[in-house]
Amino acid sequence: MATFDFSLVHDDLLLVENRLRDVASVDFPVLAGILRQLLQSGGKRLRPALVLLAARFRDYDHGKALAVAAAVEMLHTATLVHDDLIDHSLLRRGNPTLNTTWKSGVVVLVGDYLFGKAAELAAQSKSVDLGELFARTVAIICDGELRSLLDGKRWDTSREEYYRRIYAKTASLFATCSEAGAIVGEAAAEERVALREYGQNLGMAFQIADDILDFVGSERALGKPVGSDLRQGTITLPAICYVERHLDHPLVRRALGGDASDSVLSTLIDLVRASEAINDAYDAARNFSRQAKQNLAALPDLPCRQVMLDLADFVVERKT
Amino acid sequence: MATFDFSLVHDDLLLVENRLRDVASVDFPVLAGILRQLLQSGGKRLRPALVLLAARFRDYDHGKALAVAAAVEMLHTATLVHDDLIDHSLLRRGNPTLNTTWKSGVVVLVGDYLFGKAAELAAQSKSVDLGELFARTVAIICDGELRSLLDGKRWDTSREEYYRRIYAKTASLFATCSEAGAIVGEAAAEERVALREYGQNLGMAFQIADDILDFVGSERALGKPVGSDLRQGTITLPAICYVERHLDHPLVRRALGGDASDSVLSTLIDLVRASEAINDAYDAARNFSRQAKQNLAALPDLPCRQVMLDLADFVVERKT
Repeated sequence: MATFDFSLVHDDLLLVENRLRDVASVDFPVLAGILRQLLQSGGKRLRPALVLLAARFRDYDHGKALAVAAAVEMLHTATLVHDDLIDHSLLRRGNPTLNTTWKSGVVVLVGDYLFGKAAELAAQSKSVDLGELFARTVAIICDGELRSLLDGKRWDTSREEYYRRIYAKTASLFATCSEAGAIVGEAAAEERVALREYGQNLGMAFQIADDILDFVGSERALGKPVGSDLRQGTITLPAICYVERHLDHPLVRRALGGDASDSVLSTLIDLVRASEAINDAYDAARNFSRQAKQNLAALPDLPCRQVMLDLADFVVERKT
Repeated sequence: MATFDFSLVHDDLLLVENRLRDVASVDFPVLAGILRQLLQSGGKRLRPALVLLAARFRDYDHGKALAVAAAVEMLHTATLVHDDLIDHSLLRRGNPTLNTTWKSGVVVLVGDYLFGKAAELAAQSKSVDLGELFARTVAIICDGELRSLLDGKRWDTSREEYYRRIYAKTASLFATCSEAGAIVGEAAAEERVALREYGQNLGMAFQIADDILDFVGSERALGKPVGSDLRQGTITLPAICYVERHLDHPLVRRALGGDASDSVLSTLIDLVRASEAINDAYDAARNFSRQAKQNLAALPDLPCRQVMLDLADFVVERKT
């Protein structure tokens, strides 16, 4: 993602970095170190960029946009901290996660702290609508994660269930980012809806591409082992597409029957990697990307619109 | 606490229960069961009562007050869920905690979900001030808990450190409750400050009394073993007062030297229980209670004021 051209909002993104750095500047060295590590670990800043781009369709309040852009990145970071704890992940973006260094209580509280700080940044916008949107998004994300966790990980997951899951996990926050930009820009009601839908479709395409890269990417580019999702029991679209096409494959039958042994999973990861299921999943991602671009059809032809159109292609075609 | 007379706001508290029940009514039976267990487990509802009482000094918006009252209880519940996870507590109010039944990932997410729902309820107030207040409170609570956890548990904790800790842990939310009531009631600026300070002093008195009861209460009334705090390494005011008076006691020296063995702790719990340190701690609690009552001096002599004055006595004198 580092190669996508965000030059239109580059200066603003630097100001967002400053806001994030401010949050990390607490008078408590241990915590400051943890926050720096989390907030300066080279995330793609895709979500803040989305806020800033969506705000540009109108004559927006600059300070408000920066606060909201920092807030969405903070909220995203908070969810990552808790996700990594829940999944017992040891690596994130090639760096050790907090769980490798700190006991779980610290990790829980750091995530909570970031939720609070995200809400504080969002509140700086002085917008009731934004406060509601943020709160609803937190509830949607957690609700989705809880359902995934409590429902168990099943090989017979349908595409519909998968789409619901990635909406909650990823696309809901993308939708919130572009809608938040619209709110900051005081966009007209129909523009706000279009921008929200753009963000949602972009997020769906982004997450499907992420899930494909988990199979076909290189360990080096991913910063974690290939096939991590499946190894952790999370069934994503490539695996679902493979099952759709190969219901009678003996290993698929074993997996559907509940066999989650390392040897079965490793072979299945290789099979999915090399199969046409990857193209099936890319077709689905391109479909969401196409819808995202259509959502922008009625918006004015400004530079920010072109960047958002390019971004919709990029999230699918990227290699990392 | 069940014996305190909240009859002035009794009907409103029932409506708050309804709002909490609504949150628990999700279309996902497992989660609905967890939420019901958490939200209907017989908490004292002291925090919502505080919102409702503080709002009554003015002609307040009733629906807004109920939403905010439900929000503070939800926020409180969210923090308890994560606290019990962090402390590995098995009992809360005499009932098994979520950690006894669910894996930690579920407990983390249920807490997060409640944070989100609390923020949603707070956002229903359509007040920018309330949104800011809530967000700041979450950050203060987490910051305080993190400092306690990262700083380690030390027998040489000073009163000042203890007061800072219980402000973050308890009094900050009490202050937020009474200030939130003032905001809902659109109280004048100086009334809002007075009500916030009342809540803060009440919260300090409440937490000190709680920490005393952890030593002198009965296991049955507490719903958990006597001396739980000290056994978990948390040094509270009675222990601090005991150390102040008995710096040369051999067991105090051993504890200060880092001996946290069961035998040392058990004996120290018995010593603190039977000592004048309990009275010292009660003196401190009464002092905060007195300040809380003074904070109400300039407020109009309405029935809600009398209830709040009585409450300031009650939080100290209660036996459970």
